[in-house]
Amino acid sequence: RVLSTGRVVKQLTSLDIFFPKHDNFPDRHTAPSSREKDHMLEDLGLENMEELMLKVMPQNIRLNREMDLEAPLGEAELCERVESYGKMNKVWRSYIGMGFYNCRVPTTIMRNILENPGWTTQYTPYQPEISQGRLMGLINYQTMISDMTGLDISNASLLDEASACAESMGLCLRHNKRSRFYIDSKCHPQNIAVVQTRATGLGVETVVCDRDQMDFTDKSFTGVLLQYPDTDGAIYDLSPIVDAAHANGSLVACSTDLLALTIAKPPGEYGVDMAVGTSQRFGVPLGYGGPHAGFFSVKDEFKRLIPGRVVGVTRDAHGRQAYRLALQTREQHIRRDKATSNICTAQALLANMSAMFAVYHGPNGLRHIGQRTHQAAVLLAAGIEDAGHTVLNEIFFDTLKVKLNCSVDEVKSRAVEKKMNLRYFDDGCVGVSVDETVEQKDLNDLLWVFLSEKDLSQVTELVDADSEKIITKNVTFNRQTDYLMHPVFHRFQPETNIVRYMKHLENKDLSLVHSMIPLGSCTMKLNSTTEMMPISLPEFSQIHPFAPTDQAEGYLKLFKELEADLCEITGYDRISFQPNSGAQGEYTGLRAIKAYLESIDQYHRKVCLIPESAHGTNPASAQMAGMKIQAIKVNKHGSVDLADLEAKVKKHADKLAALMITYPSTNGVFDEEIRDICDLIHDKGGQVYLDGANMNAQVGICRPGDYGSDVSHLNLHKTFCIPHGGGGPGMGPIGVRKHLAPFLPTHPLVEPYDTTSEAFGTICAAPYGSSLILPISWAYIKMMGSRGLREATEMAILNANYMAKRLRPYYKILFTNNTGFVAHEFILDCRDFKKESGVEVIDIAKRLQDYGFHAPTMSFPVSGCLMLEPTESEDKEEIDRYCDALICIRKEIQMIVDGKLDLKRNPLKMAPHTQDDVITSNWNRPYPREMAAFPADFVRPDNKFWPSVGRIDDIYGDQNLLTKCPPMKFYESPYVVSKLRDIESVVG
Amino acid sequence: RVLSTGRVVKQLTSLDIFFPKHDNFPDRHTAPSSREKDHMLEDLGLENMEELMLKVMPQNIRLNREMDLEAPLGEAELCERVESYGKMNKVWRSYIGMGFYNCRVPTTIMRNILENPGWTTQYTPYQPEISQGRLMGLINYQTMISDMTGLDISNASLLDEASACAESMGLCLRHNKRSRFYIDSKCHPQNIAVVQTRATGLGVETVVCDRDQMDFTDKSFTGVLLQYPDTDGAIYDLSPIVDAAHANGSLVACSTDLLALTIAKPPGEYGVDMAVGTSQRFGVPLGYGGPHAGFFSVKDEFKRLIPGRVVGVTRDAHGRQAYRLALQTREQHIRRDKATSNICTAQALLANMSAMFAVYHGPNGLRHIGQRTHQAAVLLAAGIEDAGHTVLNEIFFDTLKVKLNCSVDEVKSRAVEKKMNLRYFDDGCVGVSVDETVEQKDLNDLLWVFLSEKDLSQVTELVDADSEKIITKNVTFNRQTDYLMHPVFHRFQPETNIVRYMKHLENKDLSLVHSMIPLGSCTMKLNSTTEMMPISLPEFSQIHPFAPTDQAEGYLKLFKELEADLCEITGYDRISFQPNSGAQGEYTGLRAIKAYLESIDQYHRKVCLIPESAHGTNPASAQMAGMKIQAIKVNKHGSVDLADLEAKVKKHADKLAALMITYPSTNGVFDEEIRDICDLIHDKGGQVYLDGANMNAQVGICRPGDYGSDVSHLNLHKTFCIPHGGGGPGMGPIGVRKHLAPFLPTHPLVEPYDTTSEAFGTICAAPYGSSLILPISWAYIKMMGSRGLREATEMAILNANYMAKRLRPYYKILFTNNTGFVAHEFILDCRDFKKESGVEVIDIAKRLQDYGFHAPTMSFPVSGCLMLEPTESEDKEEIDRYCDALICIRKEIQMIVDGKLDLKRNPLKMAPHTQDDVITSNWNRPYPREMAAFPADFVRPDNKFWPSVGRIDDIYGDQNLLTKCPPMKFYESPYVVSKLRDIESVVG
Ligand SMILES: Cc1ncc(COP(=O)(O)O)c(C=O)c1O
Ligand SMILES: Cc1ncc(COP(=O)(O)O)c(C=O)c1O
Ligand SMILES: O=C([O-])O
Repeated sequence: RVLSTGRVVKQLTSLDIFFPKHDNFPDRHTAPSSREKDHMLEDLGLENMEELMLKVMPQNIRLNREMDLEAPLGEAELCERVESYGKMNKVWRSYIGMGFYNCRVPTTIMRNILENPGWTTQYTPYQPEISQGRLMGLINYQTMISDMTGLDISNASLLDEASACAESMGLCLRHNKRSRFYIDSKCHPQNIAVVQTRATGLGVETVVCDRDQMDFTDKSFTGVLLQYPDTDGAIYDLSPIVDAAHANGSLVACSTDLLALTIAKPPGEYGVDMAVGTSQRFGVPLGYGGPHAGFFSVKDEFKRLIPGRVVGVTRDAHGRQAYRLALQTREQHIRRDKATSNICTAQALLANMSAMFAVYHGPNGLRHIGQRTHQAAVLLAAGIEDAGHTVLNEIFFDTLKVKLNCSVDEVKSRAVEKKMNLRYFDDGCVGVSVDETVEQKDLNDLLWVFLSEKDLSQVTELVDADSEKIITKNVTFNRQTDYLMHPVFHRFQPETNIVRYMKHLENKDLSLVHSMIPLGSCTMKLNSTTEMMPISLPEFSQIHPFAPTDQAEGYLKLFKELEADLCEITGYDRISFQPNSGAQGEYTGLRAIKAYLESIDQYHRKVCLIPESAHGTNPASAQMAGMKIQAIKVNKHGSVDLADLEAKVKKHADKLAALMITYPSTNGVFDEEIRDICDLIHDKGGQVYLDGANMNAQVGICRPGDYGSDVSHLNLHKTFCIPHGGGGPGMGPIGVRKHLAPFLPTHPLVEPYDTTSEAFGTICAAPYGSSLILPISWAYIKMMGSRGLREATEMAILNANYMAKRLRPYYKILFTNNTGFVAHEFILDCRDFKKESGVEVIDIAKRLQDYGFHAPTMSFPVSGCLMLEPTESEDKEEIDRYCDALICIRKEIQMIVDGKLDLKRNPLKMAPHTQDDVITSNWNRPYPREMAAFPADFVRPDNKFWPSVGRIDDIYGDQNLLTKCPPMKFYESPYVVSKLRDIESVVG
Repeated sequence: RVLSTGRVVKQLTSLDIFFPKHDNFPDRHTAPSSREKDHMLEDLGLENMEELMLKVMPQNIRLNREMDLEAPLGEAELCERVESYGKMNKVWRSYIGMGFYNCRVPTTIMRNILENPGWTTQYTPYQPEISQGRLMGLINYQTMISDMTGLDISNASLLDEASACAESMGLCLRHNKRSRFYIDSKCHPQNIAVVQTRATGLGVETVVCDRDQMDFTDKSFTGVLLQYPDTDGAIYDLSPIVDAAHANGSLVACSTDLLALTIAKPPGEYGVDMAVGTSQRFGVPLGYGGPHAGFFSVKDEFKRLIPGRVVGVTRDAHGRQAYRLALQTREQHIRRDKATSNICTAQALLANMSAMFAVYHGPNGLRHIGQRTHQAAVLLAAGIEDAGHTVLNEIFFDTLKVKLNCSVDEVKSRAVEKKMNLRYFDDGCVGVSVDETVEQKDLNDLLWVFLSEKDLSQVTELVDADSEKIITKNVTFNRQTDYLMHPVFHRFQPETNIVRYMKHLENKDLSLVHSMIPLGSCTMKLNSTTEMMPISLPEFSQIHPFAPTDQAEGYLKLFKELEADLCEITGYDRISFQPNSGAQGEYTGLRAIKAYLESIDQYHRKVCLIPESAHGTNPASAQMAGMKIQAIKVNKHGSVDLADLEAKVKKHADKLAALMITYPSTNGVFDEEIRDICDLIHDKGGQVYLDGANMNAQVGICRPGDYGSDVSHLNLHKTFCIPHGGGGPGMGPIGVRKHLAPFLPTHPLVEPYDTTSEAFGTICAAPYGSSLILPISWAYIKMMGSRGLREATEMAILNANYMAKRLRPYYKILFTNNTGFVAHEFILDCRDFKKESGVEVIDIAKRLQDYGFHAPTMSFPVSGCLMLEPTESEDKEEIDRYCDALICIRKEIQMIVDGKLDLKRNPLKMAPHTQDDVITSNWNRPYPREMAAFPADFVRPDNKFWPSVGRIDDIYGDQNLLTKCPPMKFYESPYVVSKLRDIESVVG
């Protein structure tokens, strides 16, 4: 039977022939047509895919059978299935709080950002000239976080609040190198758990105690973590503890709540050194725990210690203002295990959504929401006290801790009747947190739950509107300082304006909606609309992560199916969904290894072998896990240097904890010896961590669990179709073999299913990480089926080999295997051009922008080189265009060598070219404008993607670090006179 | 109390103060801030809005009270409300057919087109240089319709299938001027009804009879309408009737089904002259009847008689291929009552969606769907016959007419049990139509409904796969000809590709997401996201229009609320929602007037007075309603010339049927004498039709029903926020006073609620027109509330007067009232420039594109002028930019006059400027490139919107009419060598 695209499928029953399936998703996902596939195979001198598989990979690791997965679902079937799972979740009203709150996602932000591939499919803005939109969004975010927290500098997001708390401890350690850390017992339990887990990895002693019992005088404490408002809801004066800590050389970090800070004095004004938290309640759905942007802001003096990415203002080659990622030299791809953190994928998309929420509401709107939420809590407190209970917090923002004058069960059963979730403390108290979405009806229901006989209007009469309990009437806690005074937060309240603003930013950014982005190691493949649909369903988006699990049965069913499928795909026995990035997965996996080794009394095993070519997150994560890193050399094929490995294994045999290895290698080749390498490590009592970033080369054809790996993270935002969002969200669940399963992470509030008591700790604020995006990967697997997945892998490998073949006459392919083939990605060596032409790899990357393309991965894993990964979702036409662009560029280099283009003033050195550059009367370059702007036939005015700034000056920006919105020139009319004068002077 | 935006609202109870509403939609909709509002009032020398109202309008029509509407809902409340209404609808499986079928809207088209403001908020592509995206989409549509129907030329959509049937009769009449028309009794009942209604208006006699009884020999028949497959589902040979008709000079029109034509011989191959139908089942949701695109294709010889808009290929000023609306000279704004139709707003968005559906599936995918659907029907027929019933149609596509061997009630009650809707014929037969969405489970359920004891697999064994009953095995009916062979239907099956294609087209089109579009008479205001949300809810989108009304209770509740609100807003007593465009509303209103006059024995009253300044649809609709048009002069204030009116009234007193008048006038002024004019008409026994296109100047401040009008249409796609969709959909419900209410249209299948037996007929295929978009207007009214609506009107008027004031020193404002003020729009007279500078109005319109703006309405209502309507949704900053652009242009004109710019080679005459123009080494114009591309400070490289082609050559296109996809150059690699040669030759 031949399907529409010409693929042949097996005949089933006659009913299946006479009444076939409606649609076949693999044909939508895997782009090349069968004609194109044949053409590419022929070009490589191959008969068929099987022959390719024989060439590219060692045969001793092949799966040699079809994976055992459910028959593929059509797109409509998928939607139905996911809706039915959604119905198994129960959307109750949540008053649990604890860092997760209902909020109103403005529909226009939902639709124009979260549901818009123009905003979701970009990569991290490493190419700033074609990423100014989201960089501007992120600088709005940083400005918002600085302003709200009252601190000088903010980063552009972390993974969540709990890991931000852990990072705050990391900053303290880097700063003063002490080894004890205080945690206020009134921090949210998940924050405490994650910090403690992180501390045990690093060998730091944590002391959890009441804040009024902290004693800093022995100067052993590196710092302290507070929560404000605290987990019981109390707003309190931070000054005494800040003073005591500072007097003794300890730093103070405070986890805080952005909405509270719209009306309450911010941590920065109490003198804290750092503020952390989550911006979830600024316009991001609950999503059963994530993804949400964690934030981190610091005093200016700590700016070079801040973890994660920071967007900064700089200038371009023409001196014009521009944005880019600042302080890159601190990051793990440069500083390896000395980096400020292991964060690579963060939460850019969610940070952008939150920033846009602030732009949409402006400071007055936010203050209105904050005040209204607070006043709801004030009303509720009055009613609860009037009903005879005791509200334990004196001053609060939105959260009450209530000592009941009746049984908990009575309140609980009423809450259940109203389908409301409250927080039930161990001490018998009940917590209730109101939020932006609360309406009169909800408050009346809450009053009823607390056995009040009054309704809300009656309760209103009990409230003294001038009481000091109301934050804005309280001299100590009322926020006096303005915030968000920058014009960007004042111009876009009308929907017309904000829609244009969002579109304006979107259109500056090159994403998958424009052209292919063959970023090696990043797997920028199709993120299909159907896969994205579940995110918009309230049954998935509006569940609190700490809701009773019987309200999340749909989620759990889906997680279990996804776990089973990922186990079948990888050959592992269990999956933990807690890690919410690849790097976090590495850390989790290494901690599981450590816990396992300790369980068999191998405490002394701490050495982690990592090839030089490994991604920077590997050493950074290993450091965080308390391991000692030993680099392994790489041989001329790009594989691990076996001799060096054997030597190092021998040398560290007793202390060997693990080898971290990427497969196929970060150099894009399937090592022949991977089985032997795994055996070698196991022989010496070590464990194998196989970095799963390159799973897109393996799915359906080989499985790490089969050939000797013990644990891997899976970047679901690469192989499994979660869109990159301009630098996050992602998910990095780990798969482990049986012996490691007991050690997978747990959670203090909701134990992930099948957790054991041997769990090493907690790594994420939510039990299943960024749950809301897991349906994307689930949907992908369900719609592809085993054959579709395998064929996608094969096509990814074919596309890469076809590209490599086409480019080989022009560029050196740095690594191939012994048959001359590559895996799903490959490296072009650009180092030789410098000598004769002065051209460096960055010039090629920037010049590609003129051709409408995003550069491949630059200088990773090999400095001065480009790594290309086309994926299976690009067809041959697009791949050919990309090849042609690179070939043209190679010829341009030749023209420099041949003296036909100037050594300095040539289109490579001067790339990218902006409209300003080419539309000027004063063009004075020794090459034509057409060559600058339209260097190939396929770059036409009607599809030209313009870089919005010229080449970025990184050094200037780092020397003059500015991380908030710079002054903005808004339109002032009438300006006409001056402009007209210009025109007249030019003309007349 | 002062809200975030500084508006002051009345204090309510203390609870409302202490716990205020979360959000205030009017602040999102109405853009100017209170500071801006004050600034503009001051600029006009006014103290406050009231003073403005005193200046702009006659006081004797003012409402002088707040409208009596529900208190405004917040956005979240609105969403909740609409969801609760959705739940009142019941989404049963529909097998009713009759021109409306379930289909699978591909999620990626849904999200990237229907839910994307970049695709929904453009206007009709009158400015082709900045509309090439949707023009390309529409040419794909035309190609698809031509190909599928087997005819030469298609238009770019009509309102629905039934009105397309009526238009086919219109073409026959224009062609051979005969006065009788055959209708096959096996046409869908709603098609028959609409054609008959149209015929009675035109005085044409229709004969409905079995097709084998038609006798053309007396040559009195202008034409015949057939249905293929017919309403019973039969596929039959059209040849005998085509031959008989042609032999006697009659034309043949055939209403047909696109999906059937994927496998069945198309009407064109039987020799019919015209094919009509709906493209709904090509990827557009049912939506309880609409909106969907009707289609119309003809043999080449009838191309100049084709109704509605046709997109054609032409060339631009540089000879490059470009698209634009062709044959404009046939249309009603030129030919008035002699136009080929009254269609203005059509269904561009839906046509684009359907075309994209074909692009997404390609011919193989479509054939797969068609064949699969057909085979489902074949299986079902086998099972039904096996169960002892009789399938009456011999050859069918997807629809069976079944004579039962049991009682209808038995089948019906089983269908109800399965939540399935079937078609129940009056003769006791049952109809069942399967469609794209049908799955095995559905077929099994249908077998059960028909009392089969076999399941689908068992039934499969009954089917002879080579039977002649299967269309593809049938020599007569199997389609032999290829279709959709153009490359555009073959390249975009991978989702990556189609997403890029949709984005590529979107980015060519200037829409409200870019900048203001102050099209006079079109009210391009905010179309908010929340208003658009209901369209995506399956509870609204998946209801068949002929489903039992107890399955549409949510819809009906919403309609009734919307009717009540619109009555309160207009002062009318009843609303009919059937007309699905403004022009259709005009026609409906005039038909109601006619029916009323006939009911009081005033058959002879047929004269319709229409001011010269009226929109072209007015005379075209009056003609269609069988009236005789008399033009009335317009005085120098732009108002109706009272003397001429009185004279004409007097002259036609006995025959006077109606006056059609627009208020405020199409010239943008509130006539002082509107009350008197209405009285005058009534005195003479006539009725007043007040064209409601300008309701945006009236809502909340005056009501047509109060000051004397009898009937109006309301363009919900103007004042009431339905987005224009690039030329439709729209809705044109009419409001009438009590005496006209009995005559409102009905429907043969589902009587609209409160219909009387005096209804004049049917005008639309669906009982409530384009139901799916009515929630948009409903949501707007509910969220704005009475005050918000009134203030929006006032702001629209203030914005217009502020703009007029700023422009007055530079341009002549053609009409103002006696105090010098305008209403919500105004006209700039551009006729005087020609003499001294050679500049014509089109040059200004095109030059505005260089400033990033869409031109105002050009040459309507006054040739050589521009009409501007800013609406309330634009803030002062944007309005100032637009004014500055016009002022700059005025100064450029002055520079021509002063000799500083060349008379011919100046930036106005050469506008718009494309990237090709300005990025060339060979710039040879006597003005600088910067002036061409960046003529003002606010036109910057980072926000520049580029026209994708140069100025369009209309005449060339009309002389060389081409209305299908022209040959397309796809990327062929390697092209490198030739291109490199170019580069080398330039450089070396
Ligand atoms: C080989 C490799 N390992 C690990 C990572 C880290 O993953 P993440 O960015 O999800 O933290 C990456 C990211 O690109 C990678 O390429
Ligand atoms: C004054 C006036 N009347 C009638 C119409 C026709 O309305 P529609 O385009 O909805 O058919 C228009 C359309 O622009 C108009 O401006
Ligand atoms: O993002 C990466 O560093 O690959």
